[in-house]
Amino acid sequence: MDSRNVRLAVIPGDGIGTEVVTEGLKVLEAVGTKVETTTYDLGAGRYHRTGEVLPDVVLDELRGYDAILLGAVGDPSVPPGILERELLLKLRFELDHYVNLRPVKLFPGVATPLGGSRPEDIDMVVIREGTEGLYAGAGGVLRRGTPYEIATQESLNTAYGVERVVRYAFEKALGRPRRKLSLIHKTNVLTYAGDLWARTVDRVSLEYPDVTTDYYHIDAASMFFVTQPERFDVIVTDNLFGDIITDLGAAVAGGIGLAASGNINPDRTAPSMFEPVHGSAPDIAGQGKADPTATILSVAMLLDHLGLTEEAARVEKAVAEDLVERQAARASRTTREIGDDITARVAG
Amino acid sequence: MDSRNVRLAVIPGDGIGTEVVTEGLKVLEAVGTKVETTTYDLGAGRYHRTGEVLPDVVLDELRGYDAILLGAVGDPSVPPGILERELLLKLRFELDHYVNLRPVKLFPGVATPLGGSRPEDIDMVVIREGTEGLYAGAGGVLRRGTPYEIATQESLNTAYGVERVVRYAFEKALGRPRRKLSLIHKTNVLTYAGDLWARTVDRVSLEYPDVTTDYYHIDAASMFFVTQPERFDVIVTDNLFGDIITDLGAAVAGGIGLAASGNINPDRTAPSMFEPVHGSAPDIAGQGKADPTATILSVAMLLDHLGLTEEAARVEKAVAEDLVERQAARASRTTREIGDDITARVAG
Ligand SMILES: CC(C)[C@H](C(=O)O)[C@@H](O)C(=O)O
Ligand SMILES: CC(C)[C@H](C(=O)O)[C@@H](O)C(=O)O
Repeated sequence: MDSRNVRLAVIPGDGIGTEVVTEGLKVLEAVGTKVETTTYDLGAGRYHRTGEVLPDVVLDELRGYDAILLGAVGDPSVPPGILERELLLKLRFELDHYVNLRPVKLFPGVATPLGGSRPEDIDMVVIREGTEGLYAGAGGVLRRGTPYEIATQESLNTAYGVERVVRYAFEKALGRPRRKLSLIHKTNVLTYAGDLWARTVDRVSLEYPDVTTDYYHIDAASMFFVTQPERFDVIVTDNLFGDIITDLGAAVAGGIGLAASGNINPDRTAPSMFEPVHGSAPDIAGQGKADPTATILSVAMLLDHLGLTEEAARVEKAVAEDLVERQAARASRTTREIGDDITARVAG
Repeated sequence: MDSRNVRLAVIPGDGIGTEVVTEGLKVLEAVGTKVETTTYDLGAGRYHRTGEVLPDVVLDELRGYDAILLGAVGDPSVPPGILERELLLKLRFELDHYVNLRPVKLFPGVATPLGGSRPEDIDMVVIREGTEGLYAGAGGVLRRGTPYEIATQESLNTAYGVERVVRYAFEKALGRPRRKLSLIHKTNVLTYAGDLWARTVDRVSLEYPDVTTDYYHIDAASMFFVTQPERFDVIVTDNLFGDIITDLGAAVAGGIGLAASGNINPDRTAPSMFEPVHGSAPDIAGQGKADPTATILSVAMLLDHLGLTEEAARVEKAVAEDLVERQAARASRTTREIGDDITARVAG
C-alpha cells in the first residue's frame, strides 16, 4: 500500500450516516492526503429495494481497499438483527476486526454529566474484542411461540482469539504514560470464559513487566465509570462487555456525538473499518442536526491506522479546538457547519 | 405463616456482611415485629475452615423459614466463582428467586455523581430475572491452558421463565403512578433470546393496556442511565443485564452503600432472600466504616414482602430522614452509629 494514495471504501448507510460521512470526507480531503473513494450503497435502503444486505461480491470487493469508512446503518423498518448480523457484524467477523478500538476521552470544553469530573479524569482507551463471545451468533430456539419455548445464546471464546487482543492491549498500554491495563469481565459468574480471559492476561503480563494490570467485574466497572473514571487507562474486555462499557464511556465523555471507533485488523490481512459509535438516528435524519464530530474523529483514527500520524494529529487537534470554541458559542450549528469549521481548521 | 411472628434465617457472611447485618437486625427489632432469628455461618470463613459451601442439609433447613437476610459473602482468598456459584446463586436458583427486585431511587439529600439530576429524575425499580440466562452455569472448556483452548458460556432462556418475571414487572408498573415498563436487552445481537423477551413483553402487554412499554438496548440504556435517568420507571431485564444496570443504577443513585435488593419467590414456594447489592468489601471490614443503609433498606423490602407494609414504610421513612440529616452533618458516623440513629427513628 502506498500510504500517499489511499483507496477508501465508503459506506454512508442510513439516516444520519450519510450526513456525517459527508463531513468526514470533507475533513479527510482537507488533510491533503490523496484519497480515492468508492461509495457502497448498503443498509436499510438497499435491503428494502433489493432484499440484499451484503452480497458476496461486494464483500470480496471491500477486501481490496486500504480502509473502510462507515456512517451508520439501521432503520426501525428492518427487523432487529438483520442489518446488524448480516452487514455490520459480518464485516467485523469476515475482515477479522479483532480489535474494536474505542477511546473514551473528555475533551476540554466538553460538558460531562458527571458533576465532579475533569478532562484529566476521563482519558482511556477501550479495546473491545470484536470477533468472538456472544457476538458469534451461536445459539438457537426450540418450540418458538409456545409455552415450552427455549432460546439459547452461546458465548464462544478461544485462546487464539483472546490472546491476540490481550497482546494488542498490552502494547497499547505500553505506549501510554500510565501504562495501566484493566481487564473487565465477570469471572465470578462466567467462570469458563472468565478463567480463560484472566489466565491470558496473567500470562501475557509476564512479558510486560512495565505494565500494571488490574481486574474489574463488569458491574463494578460500570459503577466506577461514573464514580471514579480516573481509575482506568487502557481497558481490554470481551465483545458484549465492550459494547456496554463504551456506550457508557461515550455518555460520561460528553455524549455519543463525539465517540469514535475503529474496527481494526492489526495483522492487515484485510482492511480496517472506522465508524462513529452512534447509530443512524432516524428521528433526526435529514435535518442537519447530527453531530459529525464522532465521524471526524473516526477519520483521525483511520489516518493513524494508515501510518499518517501527523495528519491524524492535525484532525484531532482541529476537533479539540472546535470543541473548546463550541462551549463559548451561543448558536448551535448544523452538521455541515460543524464539518466546515473543522475542515477550515485542518486546511488552515 | 403468622405474619406477627417471623421466622428469619440470617446469613451475615464475610467482611462487612456481619457488621451491616447487625444493624439491619437492630432496626428490624425496633419495628416491633416479633422475629425469631437463626444465624447461619456460611461464606469464605466456613469454606476455609471446613471446605463446605452450602451443605444440602443447611439448604433444606433454609427452605423452612419465612425469609432470609444476607449480609455479603466473598473474600479474595477464595477462587472466583466458588461462593458465587455454590452459595449465592445456588440459593437464588434453588429457592426459585425469579424476581430480583432492585429499586434505584435517589433519596433527597443524597449526592449523585450526575451534576444535573434531582430526586424526581431517578426513581425506578429494576426487575432483574434471577434464575436463567448466563447465570445458569451452562458452558464448558476444552483443552484448558493450551493454545487450542475454547471456553463457552451459554445463556438459557425459557418462555416459562421469561413470562413469569415479565408478568411480575407489569403488575409492578401498574402499581406505580407512571405505569411505564421498559424492557432492556440486546435484541439486535442476541437474536434468539432477545426475540423471546421482546415477544413476551408484547404479548403480555395486551393484558395491561394501562401500562406503556418501550425498549432499550443494554448499551443505549447504560448511556441513558447517566444522561436521562428520568426515562425509566419500571425496568425488566435478564439476569446479566440486570446485574450491570443495577450497579450502574446504584452509582447514579448515591452509591452502593444505599442499594437494597430482594431475591423474591413471588409464588412463595420457598423463602425470599434480602441483601444489600454491595459485596463483603474486605478492604474496609472490621473498621466500622461500612454503611448499613443498604441492609436496612433491604430489611424494609423484607417487611414489605411479609405483608408488613406499615412497618416497611416506617423503616424507609426513618432512612429517608437520616439521609437528609446526613447531608448537613459534619462528622461521619460509624456503621453502628448510623444503625443506632435509624433504629431510634424507627422506635421513636
Ligand atoms: C449495532 C450493534 C450491532 C453494534 C454492537 O453491538 O456492536 C453497536 O452497538 C456498536 O457498539 O457498534
Ligand atoms: C456476587 C455476584 C454473583 C452477584 C451477581 O452477579 O448477581 C452480585 O454482583 C449481585 O449483583 O448480587
